[in-house]
Amino acid sequence: MGYQEFTIEGRNAVIEAYRSGKPIDKIFILDGCQDGPMMTIKREAKKHDTMVKYVTKERLDQMSETGKHQGVIAYAAAYEYAEVEEILENARRKGEPPFIFLLDNIEDPHNLGAIIRTANLAGAHGVIIPKNRAAGLTATVARTSAGALNYTPVAKVTNLVKTIEDLKKEGLWFVCADMGGTSMYQLNLKGPIGLVIGNEGEGVGRLVKENCDMIASIPMKGDIDSLNASVAAGVLAYEIVRQRLS
Amino acid sequence: MGYQEFTIEGRNAVIEAYRSGKPIDKIFILDGCQDGPMMTIKREAKKHDTMVKYVTKERLDQMSETGKHQGVIAYAAAYEYAEVEEILENARRKGEPPFIFLLDNIEDPHNLGAIIRTANLAGAHGVIIPKNRAAGLTATVARTSAGALNYTPVAKVTNLVKTIEDLKKEGLWFVCADMGGTSMYQLNLKGPIGLVIGNEGEGVGRLVKENCDMIASIPMKGDIDSLNASVAAGVLAYEIVRQRLS
Repeated sequence: MGYQEFTIEGRNAVIEAYRSGKPIDKIFILDGCQDGPMMTIKREAKKHDTMVKYVTKERLDQMSETGKHQGVIAYAAAYEYAEVEEILENARRKGEPPFIFLLDNIEDPHNLGAIIRTANLAGAHGVIIPKNRAAGLTATVARTSAGALNYTPVAKVTNLVKTIEDLKKEGLWFVCADMGGTSMYQLNLKGPIGLVIGNEGEGVGRLVKENCDMIASIPMKGDIDSLNASVAAGVLAYEIVRQRLS
Repeated sequence: MGYQEFTIEGRNAVIEAYRSGKPIDKIFILDGCQDGPMMTIKREAKKHDTMVKYVTKERLDQMSETGKHQGVIAYAAAYEYAEVEEILENARRKGEPPFIFLLDNIEDPHNLGAIIRTANLAGAHGVIIPKNRAAGLTATVARTSAGALNYTPVAKVTNLVKTIEDLKKEGLWFVCADMGGTSMYQLNLKGPIGLVIGNEGEGVGRLVKENCDMIASIPMKGDIDSLNASVAAGVLAYEIVRQRLS
C-alpha cells in the first residue's frame, strides 16, 4: 500500500497509459508538436481533464529520466488500493474494535484528502470508497491528505451496500450523518463502527441510509443548511473518539 | 452587514476601483483590445491576481447593465465588515454567553469560508480576523461559506492580541488549539469563550498563544501531524457546543 508519483515518457507509453485507465495528473508536451500521435494524446488529455503544459525541448530534456521522451512526459499517480479485509486486519493487529470510514460518493478531491487525513488522526483503521462517480486517489487527494494516504489504507468497492452487509457480519454497526437523525451525543458509538459520510450535495444515498443502524445528526444552531463534508466527517469522527476514550 | 457581488463597468471606473483597493474577483475584457487604459487594467489585474476572461463585444453587451462598458466589466465583492461590539451585541440579543471565533492568519480562502460556515452552524456569534496577511472576504470565501457570510458577522481588527485583551474585560476566556495542550475533553469550555484557530502551516502565533487562558489539544491517534485547519476548527467548536448543551 502507499502512494507514489511516477513519470511516463514517450508517445506510445502515454497513449497506452490513457487507454488502460491510469490516472494521469499532468502532462508536458513539446510546444508546437502537431503530429497524429500527439493529437491523440491532446484529445485524451482533454477527455480526462489532465492539466497540459506546453514546454520547450530543453525543459523536457531536463525532466526526462529515460532520455527518450519523444516530446511528451506524463505524471501519473500510483496508488495501490487495499482490500477491505486488510482494514479489518489493521484493527485486529492494533487490538482495537474496527473503526472504518465509508464515503458515499465524495466528489471533491480536497474533501476526500481532508477526510483521509481526519481518518488517520482519529485512529480509524481504513477508508472505503465506491468505484463509480466518486473522486479517486489523485495527486490532489494525496497532497490534501498531508501524507495520511501513506498510512491509512483505502479500499475501493463496487457496491457500498453489499460491503455494509458483509461488514455487519463482522460485528460492525453503521452510523450515517443526516439531518433529522438522533443527536450524535445521544447515540452509543463505542463499539466496532462504520461511519458513513454522504455526498457533498445530496448527502447519503437512500439505500445506504436504509442499511445504517443509526442516523446521527450534528446539532445545527445556525441559519444555513449543512457543514462542509470534511468538517462534518471530522466532527462525527471525534464524537466517536470521545466516546471511545471515556 | 452582508455580502454582495456587483459589477463595475468602463475603463476609468475599473482603474479607479483597483486604485482604491476594492477586491475585484473577475474581469471581462474585449478580446484584442490593446490601448493604454486597457494595458493599465491588465497590469492591475495581474498585480492583484484577478481572473481575466477575454470575450467578444456581443458577450459584453449582454452582460452590461449600463450599456457603457467600453470593453471592460469587472466583478467586485462587497462586504461590510462588522464591529467587534456588534458581535457582542449579537450574543446579548440571543441571551447567550458570547462564543466568538478568532482566526490567527488563515490564508486559504476555502478554509476561511468553511470556518465561517462552521461558526454559523455551531451557533457562534461572530468571527474576528486580522487585517494583515490573512485571507479577506472574497467571492471564493462567500461561496465556500455556503451563505453563512450573510448571517454571521465578521470583524477585521488591526491587532488580535489587543482585541483579546479588550474581550477579556468583557468576561471572555480564550482557548487556542495547539499540540501539547490539555485534551479538549478535560477543559471547561462552557462560559463566554473565544476560540482561536491558528494559521494552516505555523499554527497560533506566540504572542496570541501567550494571551490565551487555555491551550486545547485534539487527541491525535494517527501517523501524521495535524488536521486541516477548518476540520480542527469544526472539531473544537463542536466540543464547545457539546459542553454547552450538557
